[in-house]
Amino acid sequence: MTPQAAYDELVRRSRERSLLVSCIELLGWDELTYMPRGGVENRSRQMAYLAGLYHDAVTDPRQGELLSIVAASSLVDDPTGPAAVNLRGWRRVYERMSCQPKSLVEELARATTTAQQVWTTARQNESFAEFRPWLEQVLALVRQQGECLRSVGRIVNPSYADSIYDALMQDYEPGASVPQLEKLFSALRPELARLLDAIRGAKRRTSGAILRRDYPLDRQKIFGETVSAALGFDFDCGRLDTTTHPFFSPIGPGDSRVTTRYNQNDFGEAFFGLLHEVGHGLYEQGLEAEHYGTPLGESSSLGVHEALARLWENGVGRSLPFWRHFFPQARELFHQALHDVEAEEFYAAVNHVRPGVNRVRADEATYDLHILLRFELERALLSGDLAPTDLPGAWNEKYRDYLGVTPANDAEGCLQDGHWSAGQFGYFPTYTLGNIYAAQLLASARATLGDLSGQFACGQFATFNDWLRERLYRHGQRYPAAKLIENATGQPLDHRPLVEALRIKYGELYGI
Amino acid sequence: MTPQAAYDELVRRSRERSLLVSCIELLGWDELTYMPRGGVENRSRQMAYLAGLYHDAVTDPRQGELLSIVAASSLVDDPTGPAAVNLRGWRRVYERMSCQPKSLVEELARATTTAQQVWTTARQNESFAEFRPWLEQVLALVRQQGECLRSVGRIVNPSYADSIYDALMQDYEPGASVPQLEKLFSALRPELARLLDAIRGAKRRTSGAILRRDYPLDRQKIFGETVSAALGFDFDCGRLDTTTHPFFSPIGPGDSRVTTRYNQNDFGEAFFGLLHEVGHGLYEQGLEAEHYGTPLGESSSLGVHEALARLWENGVGRSLPFWRHFFPQARELFHQALHDVEAEEFYAAVNHVRPGVNRVRADEATYDLHILLRFELERALLSGDLAPTDLPGAWNEKYRDYLGVTPANDAEGCLQDGHWSAGQFGYFPTYTLGNIYAAQLLASARATLGDLSGQFACGQFATFNDWLRERLYRHGQRYPAAKLIENATGQPLDHRPLVEALRIKYGELYGI
Repeated sequence: MTPQAAYDELVRRSRERSLLVSCIELLGWDELTYMPRGGVENRSRQMAYLAGLYHDAVTDPRQGELLSIVAASSLVDDPTGPAAVNLRGWRRVYERMSCQPKSLVEELARATTTAQQVWTTARQNESFAEFRPWLEQVLALVRQQGECLRSVGRIVNPSYADSIYDALMQDYEPGASVPQLEKLFSALRPELARLLDAIRGAKRRTSGAILRRDYPLDRQKIFGETVSAALGFDFDCGRLDTTTHPFFSPIGPGDSRVTTRYNQNDFGEAFFGLLHEVGHGLYEQGLEAEHYGTPLGESSSLGVHEALARLWENGVGRSLPFWRHFFPQARELFHQALHDVEAEEFYAAVNHVRPGVNRVRADEATYDLHILLRFELERALLSGDLAPTDLPGAWNEKYRDYLGVTPANDAEGCLQDGHWSAGQFGYFPTYTLGNIYAAQLLASARATLGDLSGQFACGQFATFNDWLRERLYRHGQRYPAAKLIENATGQPLDHRPLVEALRIKYGELYGI
Repeated sequence: MTPQAAYDELVRRSRERSLLVSCIELLGWDELTYMPRGGVENRSRQMAYLAGLYHDAVTDPRQGELLSIVAASSLVDDPTGPAAVNLRGWRRVYERMSCQPKSLVEELARATTTAQQVWTTARQNESFAEFRPWLEQVLALVRQQGECLRSVGRIVNPSYADSIYDALMQDYEPGASVPQLEKLFSALRPELARLLDAIRGAKRRTSGAILRRDYPLDRQKIFGETVSAALGFDFDCGRLDTTTHPFFSPIGPGDSRVTTRYNQNDFGEAFFGLLHEVGHGLYEQGLEAEHYGTPLGESSSLGVHEALARLWENGVGRSLPFWRHFFPQARELFHQALHDVEAEEFYAAVNHVRPGVNRVRADEATYDLHILLRFELERALLSGDLAPTDLPGAWNEKYRDYLGVTPANDAEGCLQDGHWSAGQFGYFPTYTLGNIYAAQLLASARATLGDLSGQFACGQFATFNDWLRERLYRHGQRYPAAKLIENATGQPLDHRPLVEALRIKYGELYGI
């Protein structure tokens, strides 16, 4: 078999797997939007069946043979050429899936399915004790998984001998490492603490009260769709629906779906949630359709995905120029709530800082502190330095230390997120990496695109989105995430643009 | 391998194929309800991929081996026991799929995909000439398919040596035959002609004008959902959405979805379309969930499915007792349109007879004439007695002959239905079979359930639906359709209950 024939077969297999994933995405989207509740049992069977087909396809020994043929050929001489890029992506998945015994994969699937159900109930009952045995079980399995993945790391890269956490993290942010993150986060934390202290000590006060006035739901939907379209989200190739926990679903090329959740007395909940998902959507809509179904046509990492989401949600959607443009429309639609409000006041309200116990509802100034403490806690859990039974205490202590607040109970505390019940250890850092990438991207766009604020204030977002497409979207997985951001911005990974952006924004708002 | 082990593997395979079909159903439902138009290319790739997986699963030689083991065993001694019923269903599909060369299946899929697109455009352009070459191509392929299927008929039943049309029809109404249908339909036609003549000559006139008043869309939806729930449709295990061409989609157990299309100035379009789909839905919701994924848990035939749809749409929904109960609610919801109307007038309006050129919009008195002429035309096309180029002329002549009307153009004439472009020759008779079955069922229910009209007039439909569940739904494919209806009603296949029901209804309405 010629290397070219092997490569062609790999492409065909890759595209077929993508069709399977696309089906899984649609089933998942439907489950969370329109499926009647009676359909849940059939849906879980469908999901398990498709997941099984996917696993078989990905670990098929034939896949390994084809990968070896291409790896040994001149097709991959150019490390940024399609064949080399795709081979890296395929190999990563193949090696990582193949190294895990099928029994472990199945046990993890079973344990995390139950653990997630138990977690839901435990959270409702505000009882960590109910969840603890399942956390222990998931941890034990994830440790085994991490050990398998470490060995793969050594095969792919002989110098790789890092922790289980490093190994697990590669599923979410390929190329990231604990030492790199520790360095980055330990530089970030004191800066965020200083900023928070300054805001706390500021004489000037802000308030988010005007966001809790009456915002009719149907108008929220109109406003959200209008803004999304203005930012560049193509509704011919996507749609917006309502759900309980907002998410983005990349069904396939030409079909990217965002969801949100409306609250009549909280303008921010649906609107910024929507902008966040639209950020994910713009990334997927900007991938190269011709490479769909291969790593070259797929998003780079969770961190980069999150960067785009946070960029549009915060960098654009919580900026003053954005509201200078959109506030008049908002005031027309929400006349009762906003007739006595000015754009600047609204801008201050959407940036009101209040340290709290909840990650998802956190403002820009405190959000990363929620992540930093989770990064420490989950490493301690994995290494065994922190026993699950001691988690609630450790959690609450860190919240006092980092944010000066204390959860009223475990539901508000260490049970608030579902990642651990799903076995996703190593996922949390991608949120803060996303914020750091986003700030680097915005700073670089400002430096190269002229008066970006002026453009936003005129409702012009196309130049910025085109710049992102050119530098980011269209490259798919051509580069590891950190390299992609470095190429796009001309700067290596750096926490300072994020700190700088926060200092400027809150400096003006709070007079600090 | 023991017969029991073979049977168990067949059940497992059958359930897996059902999960695939369930995915295909959901993708199809989404395509016609919510999918953004940009998603069409990816969707067709997903569909082709899943269809390929289904075809491979169904024609897997292993399937044939397992079927032979079970067929030769004592497991199938009881012809109405689960093993025998399932074996018959599996074998029919296996033999019919396996006998067709893969090249033919692929060519048919390609040709009908294009033919359906061409048909859509040709209809828009009112040009049969555009569609003719594709009809010829589809006909040639369907003839080949019919030849393959005939040979299978001979294998399964050595005395079977019937026409290509007989062979094709087994996909839609297993067990039906051309001689049987000819006998039935030739008895039915003069009765329908006599009835239509009498209505035409009646002194008393009816009108459907009140149905074309102003019916606000949101209230149509409320009324439709209220009635559907009252008839027994379980919205915890189903839902209602809007689409262009209403359809029913059996996603899986606990998940049956109906759709309809609203027209503010045509009450009947959404409402009776919905009752029709709800009839399909009640059947699927009444199948035995424990047998889901095997023939014993699947609907019997298209004719039986159509019978349930027509039974609830016409037998129930176009009856006077039904409107005695629901009209007061309708008048409250549609006060502007109906404040000066009485239940009896409304009942007369929903039963207004007007011979027309369109099958889908036809009233109960003329509907079957549309089917009977299609049954004749499609057999003539298949046999070669009618050349495609002569179809428009033959079509229009039959419409003059059967219904006394002439289509203004081919779009209103022989291009109105998509069945032939999809290669579905032998499908049309199931509509009239459905009407015949429905009338037999209603007559039998009246004879056994006491005052059925009285129950309907009190809004009680549960006894009737339970009767259908007991006699029909729960049997799945235990019996061939005709035998199932005979068991349910105690009478062999008979056109007279349909004629009798129409005579009574229109006799009263038109004073004939």
